[in-house]
Amino acid sequence: MPVYSARVLVSLRPSVLDPAGEATRSAASRLGVEGIVKLRIGKAVELEIEAPDLATARERLSLLSDRLLANAVIENWTLELAASGESSGTSSPVGEG
Amino acid sequence: MPVYSARVLVSLRPSVLDPAGEATRSAASRLGVEGIVKLRIGKAVELEIEAPDLATARERLSLLSDRLLANAVIENWTLELAASGESSGTSSPVGEG
Repeated sequence: MPVYSARVLVSLRPSVLDPAGEATRSAASRLGVEGIVKLRIGKAVELEIEAPDLATARERLSLLSDRLLANAVIENWTLELAASGESSGTSSPVGEG
Repeated sequence: MPVYSARVLVSLRPSVLDPAGEATRSAASRLGVEGIVKLRIGKAVELEIEAPDLATARERLSLLSDRLLANAVIENWTLELAASGESSGTSSPVGEG
């Protein structure tokens, strides 16, 4: 079975505060790095999955992202799945919250 | 001054153990998601930086990544910097460690 490489990016929803990101932004300014107007910290999960085809891999990874990798109450996720050079994306339903 | 969007991906060096990733891989299997052969968890920092030009933005973000966002002893970083539709990458010197 082919092995597919994937990346799931998990980010806080826009309405959720990110104190770690704010602290990092302040620290950047103290370090002398000027001009940072926004900084938010999320997770990047790098995966390899063995599946019969790309559609199955995508389905499994969407389930995994929804149920395990992201907390849907406060986080959105984006799946980047590459198959022999090409890449395509799937995302969680993006809410305003 | 233009504002550039950037993403810094911080990942553990290949030789560094990732117990959180291993636990997630086991949990995926218990959840019924089969075929995950590799899973490692890193950080994704989404930024916006105001800078006079792209080269300056890249320079500042490289400094920030080296000094603040990544711990060079155990982590590598990759910078994705987009300017009006185009995207290009910069990485930390990748060591075997």
